[in-house]
Amino acid sequence: MRMYDLISKKKQGAPLSETEIREMIAGYTEGSIPDYQMSAMAMAIYFQGMNREETAWLTHAMAHSGDTVDLSMFGTLTADKHSTGGVGDKTTLIVAPIVAACGLKVAKMSGRGLGHTGGTVDKLESIEGYRSSLSQAEFFRQVEEVGLAVIGQTGNLTPADKKLYALRDVTATVDSIPLIVSSIMSKKLAAGSQTIVLDVKAGSGAFMRDSESAGVLAREMVAIGKACGRKMAAFVTNMDVPLGNNIGNALEVVEAIGVLRGTVGGELRSLCLHLAATMISLGLSLDFEDALAKATACLEGGRAFEKFTQWIQAQGGRVDWVLNPSLFPTASSVYGVKANRAGYIGQMHTEQIGLCAGMLGAGRIRKEDPVDFAAGIVLEKKTGDWVEIGDVLAYLHTNQSGILPEAEKCFLAAIQIQDEKPEALPLIYERID
Amino acid sequence: MRMYDLISKKKQGAPLSETEIREMIAGYTEGSIPDYQMSAMAMAIYFQGMNREETAWLTHAMAHSGDTVDLSMFGTLTADKHSTGGVGDKTTLIVAPIVAACGLKVAKMSGRGLGHTGGTVDKLESIEGYRSSLSQAEFFRQVEEVGLAVIGQTGNLTPADKKLYALRDVTATVDSIPLIVSSIMSKKLAAGSQTIVLDVKAGSGAFMRDSESAGVLAREMVAIGKACGRKMAAFVTNMDVPLGNNIGNALEVVEAIGVLRGTVGGELRSLCLHLAATMISLGLSLDFEDALAKATACLEGGRAFEKFTQWIQAQGGRVDWVLNPSLFPTASSVYGVKANRAGYIGQMHTEQIGLCAGMLGAGRIRKEDPVDFAAGIVLEKKTGDWVEIGDVLAYLHTNQSGILPEAEKCFLAAIQIQDEKPEALPLIYERID
Repeated sequence: MRMYDLISKKKQGAPLSETEIREMIAGYTEGSIPDYQMSAMAMAIYFQGMNREETAWLTHAMAHSGDTVDLSMFGTLTADKHSTGGVGDKTTLIVAPIVAACGLKVAKMSGRGLGHTGGTVDKLESIEGYRSSLSQAEFFRQVEEVGLAVIGQTGNLTPADKKLYALRDVTATVDSIPLIVSSIMSKKLAAGSQTIVLDVKAGSGAFMRDSESAGVLAREMVAIGKACGRKMAAFVTNMDVPLGNNIGNALEVVEAIGVLRGTVGGELRSLCLHLAATMISLGLSLDFEDALAKATACLEGGRAFEKFTQWIQAQGGRVDWVLNPSLFPTASSVYGVKANRAGYIGQMHTEQIGLCAGMLGAGRIRKEDPVDFAAGIVLEKKTGDWVEIGDVLAYLHTNQSGILPEAEKCFLAAIQIQDEKPEALPLIYERID
Repeated sequence: MRMYDLISKKKQGAPLSETEIREMIAGYTEGSIPDYQMSAMAMAIYFQGMNREETAWLTHAMAHSGDTVDLSMFGTLTADKHSTGGVGDKTTLIVAPIVAACGLKVAKMSGRGLGHTGGTVDKLESIEGYRSSLSQAEFFRQVEEVGLAVIGQTGNLTPADKKLYALRDVTATVDSIPLIVSSIMSKKLAAGSQTIVLDVKAGSGAFMRDSESAGVLAREMVAIGKACGRKMAAFVTNMDVPLGNNIGNALEVVEAIGVLRGTVGGELRSLCLHLAATMISLGLSLDFEDALAKATACLEGGRAFEKFTQWIQAQGGRVDWVLNPSLFPTASSVYGVKANRAGYIGQMHTEQIGLCAGMLGAGRIRKEDPVDFAAGIVLEKKTGDWVEIGDVLAYLHTNQSGILPEAEKCFLAAIQIQDEKPEALPLIYERID
């Protein structure tokens, strides 16, 4: 196999064979295939695509390019979820304890965030004491005893994906469906769970701007996961508004605790119940309606919150904060952004709201940067709400008060206030099984 | 300017600006833009193309990426020719002395061959003593006094093209019209001649297999050269048969001497007169017919051969060999390949005939390899000729007699003998001005 011939073949639109894909990924991982050939291949894949078989082989080859997590001791009970990323998405913090309380095993490795706001691990670390590094033995024991553990990525999982993603990121080849699918699904497969539920975001705050293209991506991922023997489902959900009201690490944990304690409802709660019920129905082989009833009962009866508390305690986090969220450190400046006209809140440019949270200190640009756990935004009004002049639209939380004028401008530019009430968009566009 | 943004722009099909192209080539030449970004860009250009303005800016940027040859002391009289490469193409050896004898100045840098047969410099070096390295002062003085000099590439001409071509060669991005055009034309522009005549080959022995795509390439190159202020013309010519009868370094020099002395005619002579007359008509502002008459008179009156002799003498080559070509060393084995059936010679797979010459020793695979000047093929029959069983089709010349059985097989596989007389193809498909 010569990489030149594979590039040429893909360039002409011909499918690559399983052996060709496997050898390509092995060669790229070990370094015998240089970046400049792989980036030409990635661009050829961008233009010519890959069929489902090729995508499955690519995913499989990347999943097995390094270590894999063996969760076979938990049988078929292991369940994982993945969101393609959006603003205000704290669903893992709510869904994981619900499904664990219902008997599933959540052994999750999660990322730190790069960009506007933190990742799940950053959010969890805003709880003082939370240990996101566990030894393998500790990790498995906690999953066994508590039913869930969430740690940062450890070990040498999917090195091919790490290398290829870094290359795509600098060669404008990120936006290719087979490459996105294989990147996400290789990590999920390597992480070992038998049930995988995907939340594919669509809208102004998501990588996929419309629900049709998000649906294409979701269908591909479900098909690839099934082809690799996993129980799969996906939702295409609305990211034309932030999910929930709080954006920023500690602020999101506090909102998640609110859902778990029954004081926060709305779309965030609804989406979490759908995701949890889907994981439960697949993992325990229940009807969706039965699973939804089970998840709702678990949440409403307080068992999900109890599970959350056990989880945080097991990983060393301050349980007193969980029980009394007013103990979370707050930002030195909290500034209310006011409406400069009356009307309905129309479109929210959700990515820009995320950017604004990043300006306030909630995100990081380089891997080494710290995040400010207290920084972020609390939305008071969202798309469809009526506001009068002077009403507070959102509170900006930051420890760098000098940034406030710019952050306010950034936030206001992301919001549109209009005369007509905007059409309501569904929370869930589509479910794919 | 970020290279990422340029790749993304081209990927989406948008044209790059002059500044963007200039900075990209400058950054790539100096090394601040890495190969992996440039190969992704090359693949994006393969799929999205470049408009004529972009191609002109790219050509100009590459032409000025290193040294350029200043031929301004010769005014408008400087003329160059370029062939895209074919089997048996020894036209420079004939055209250069014709046009120099007519008053033009040919200051030519030429390549060594990689592949089946040698380049022009290899052919010239088969004349013992020929010095293909001259100092700049010697080079210019010879052009001034004799009217022509042909040397190997010296100095740091078009480093961007050298680097980009090497990258395209390993990333399957050679076959892109704007990249081919800018590669060829940047070198021609940097070499400094005011008149440039191109011979774009089409057929089984050429990079472009059909005359239509060769025509597209030729039109682009003519347009780009004109946009950069040069007097331009191009021919699309037949490479479905080797040009002339001799293939191999010394064998080709001997055939060229035959044309110059009036003992060899046919298509080789005809094409050389067309190329020479076009250079003369552009360089001296004459009608083509007048220029053709002038070139023909020069050839028939012996002045072109006289000029050839002066040239070789000036560069240190054995003039006694030129005057008596039987002095050229010959190969130890000369083997006649015989027809195994009667019929007309049909298609010749010309590239494979070139390959066969390479097997006999006429070419090189690595830059450092020596070529065997005496090795090659003399064709006795070409497409359209009638042969009886046992007639000699060609003589294979080699110093490695062990290779003969394989070389004979290779040669016979490249020739088709058939009952019907094949349709005659034109020598010149198209002229582009």
